Amino acid sequence: MSNLSILLLKALEPWRNARAWHVALSGGLDSTVLLHVLAQLRQTRSLPPLSAIHVHHGLQAAADAWPAHCQALCDALGVPLQVVHVHVQAGASLERAAREARYQAFVTLTRAQEVLLTGQHRDDQAETLLFRLLRGAGVSGLAAMPRQRRLGEGNLCRPLLDVSRTVLEAYAREHSLSWIEDPSNQQTDFSRNYLRHEIFPLLTRRWPQAAASMARSAAHCAEAQGLLDDLARQDLQAAGAVSEFDWLGLPSLELAPITCLSPARQRNALRYWLAAFSQLPDTDHWAGWDALRDARGDGQPLWKLAEGELHRAGGRIWWLAGDWLRQPPASVQWHNPHQPLILPGNGQLRLSGDIPDGSVQVSYRQGGEVMTVKNRGHRDLKRLLNEQGLPLFVRGRLPLLYVNGQLLAVANLPGLDCGPCGRWQLHWLPTKSDQGLS
Amino acid sequence: MSNLSILLLKALEPWRNARAWHVALSGGLDSTVLLHVLAQLRQTRSLPPLSAIHVHHGLQAAADAWPAHCQALCDALGVPLQVVHVHVQAGASLERAAREARYQAFVTLTRAQEVLLTGQHRDDQAETLLFRLLRGAGVSGLAAMPRQRRLGEGNLCRPLLDVSRTVLEAYAREHSLSWIEDPSNQQTDFSRNYLRHEIFPLLTRRWPQAAASMARSAAHCAEAQGLLDDLARQDLQAAGAVSEFDWLGLPSLELAPITCLSPARQRNALRYWLAAFSQLPDTDHWAGWDALRDARGDGQPLWKLAEGELHRAGGRIWWLAGDWLRQPPASVQWHNPHQPLILPGNGQLRLSGDIPDGSVQVSYRQGGEVMTVKNRGHRDLKRLLNEQGLPLFVRGRLPLLYVNGQLLAVANLPGLDCGPCGRWQLHWLPTKSDQGLS
Repeated sequence: MSNLSILLLKALEPWRNARAWHVALSGGLDSTVLLHVLAQLRQTRSLPPLSAIHVHHGLQAAADAWPAHCQALCDALGVPLQVVHVHVQAGASLERAAREARYQAFVTLTRAQEVLLTGQHRDDQAETLLFRLLRGAGVSGLAAMPRQRRLGEGNLCRPLLDVSRTVLEAYAREHSLSWIEDPSNQQTDFSRNYLRHEIFPLLTRRWPQAAASMARSAAHCAEAQGLLDDLARQDLQAAGAVSEFDWLGLPSLELAPITCLSPARQRNALRYWLAAFSQLPDTDHWAGWDALRDARGDGQPLWKLAEGELHRAGGRIWWLAGDWLRQPPASVQWHNPHQPLILPGNGQLRLSGDIPDGSVQVSYRQGGEVMTVKNRGHRDLKRLLNEQGLPLFVRGRLPLLYVNGQLLAVANLPGLDCGPCGRWQLHWLPTKSDQGLS
Repeated sequence: MSNLSILLLKALEPWRNARAWHVALSGGLDSTVLLHVLAQLRQTRSLPPLSAIHVHHGLQAAADAWPAHCQALCDALGVPLQVVHVHVQAGASLERAAREARYQAFVTLTRAQEVLLTGQHRDDQAETLLFRLLRGAGVSGLAAMPRQRRLGEGNLCRPLLDVSRTVLEAYAREHSLSWIEDPSNQQTDFSRNYLRHEIFPLLTRRWPQAAASMARSAAHCAEAQGLLDDLARQDLQAAGAVSEFDWLGLPSLELAPITCLSPARQRNALRYWLAAFSQLPDTDHWAGWDALRDARGDGQPLWKLAEGELHRAGGRIWWLAGDWLRQPPASVQWHNPHQPLILPGNGQLRLSGDIPDGSVQVSYRQGGEVMTVKNRGHRDLKRLLNEQGLPLFVRGRLPLLYVNGQLLAVANLPGLDCGPCGRWQLHWLPTKSDQGLS
């Protein structure tokens, strides 16, 4: 068995019981060698069913011949091939759009307990690390490409991450493999190619182990990032007490356990928490967190991020996104109060108990509302909301129930959410904020 | 005030109340500019007393003219200069030896509440990071040079770490400063120069902000390393229960709280703990930790490190170094048992109570010793030590007291450390193991 086969088997050891292995086959050197080694291996080893996926981006004329090339290779190896045509949306970076379309196809085709195998190798890893360094990345960025990660319902694995390009080339020559040289490598990915052709040869001339060392640094950073995540989870757990407004369905944290951490540890915990919801701000923009944390007075402090806003209210921070950032339409007639009412952009309402007669309408606060409260007479709505400590960002979207033009109830707030004599009750299920990043 | 002055004042803000600022003045561009800016600043600001230190290594003829150059500069600026001659020991790396001799001089000259200021700038920081990357460093290495750190009794600060070399050169030209170009820069530090002259110009051609970005990555890594240290301290605290053999005076940890951590977190905690005692092993040698942790049976599992050994015994790990790794001389006559006895390489002994008459001798275990124990008759010493759970590595150096040729007491072990009828007691103060790294 070749050294490459041994390395590959070791890297794939955790995935030997997967339901299927799909090789992401571009037709280039890396994936061609990967597929070839695996096809050889399965003759002597019991491996999961092997197949290949070629994604056709339709971006350059040269690429139209690649599916046939991949088909010929797969036919020769007896491996089933799936060719997927994707539509790449033109945008700021064609390369990034192509990558996103490609991975979207992989997500779709990789089911639970299946593994997608990609051909990135050690030199790719070193390039990625250097590239990230040239953008001033932190530890998670310097960890470069993970060896494995979730991919939709299944997993992605990069079994060649410890193998140099030289070794792959030697294998390809030894087995007389032919592969595609993507001409767009020379064009679309100029920065990468600059590193590959201008920088790395010079580094390797003086430090022959440059790529290996850099890949080792990336692995150290990946391990360290795992520990930083441990620390973040632990710090977040301390801030995880449930809010009395848990029914808002918004992700939130207690502020005090966060602010008693060192600033670096605050950032670490928040970075981990926010990563589920939004792109993270770069170094300079973390001043927004300091401002949110330290704001005083009665304002409505918030920190705008790429995919939403972090609000501070009632000793907590709250993640708001999507509909939560848009004011819902002013007022809705509830024609059949026996049925739940969908509030456009604001979740849904339900009445329980003896449904009131008359014209039922749902509105939002405009200011100046007055409400009759049992045993307390007429009260300003504003004061009532203050008493309950309702976060400011909820007030403009809290459903108010009017019957025959009179304000009778405020959804979900204890003592204000039910009709006279408690005959009925108003339940609001707010819209979600935390769908998160795909 | 120039931008450089503003940056410098900001970086030195935490040190404004120091007792003295010493500039490490090589006479090169960086330290010349640093001294010049500070000498200007003190005319309008209240700064700590300013002085300069020039270290003369005596390694090259050209350098013999530098003290005079530095003296002329300091005279012109009205700053007192101290020229220190150091002796550099030839070794594997002359450059490293020179650096060590230089810093040793700085340690000596920087007293409590004083600060040594060195001239390293942003390009140096980027070079250091890339250099570390080419050695496969982890997060602490990629953090490159710290902005500040302890230096002997005082502190070291690098106030120019955010300033580019270009800015320093512009300042020097503007103020017509002359400086020394160290010819050994071209020779002794070839790797550094290769990065500076071959690699960085190419990187900067495509990414003008390369050095700034890389310095930012280094700062991210420094912050992350602080968090990893937090995590390590926390994990070590959980393993900090005091041993019944605390009197050995050896650094030790409970094993169980460590082994229940993930392997990455074990390494993080041990790295932090061991750093006080020894150079740390590189990636490959951490297998020694796995072996120590997982060893079974009655052996004496140990892990050899650069400056000592980690032993496992009695559910703990113990750091042994120095005399603890050498067998003490076989036997010593205690001529005056009323006075403490210095045991060569093994600490000291003391007798309290009614000092016994007769010929008193101290020996170490050879095997086969038998001892009379009150109410138990004759017992094998080996069994007695097993009963007490004494770590194996102590047994060969545990002082045994013989009076007139008869074994009467074993130091420090409850029930075995006193003479007949408890008239006297034998106290052993073992030698230290944890002097640590300078």
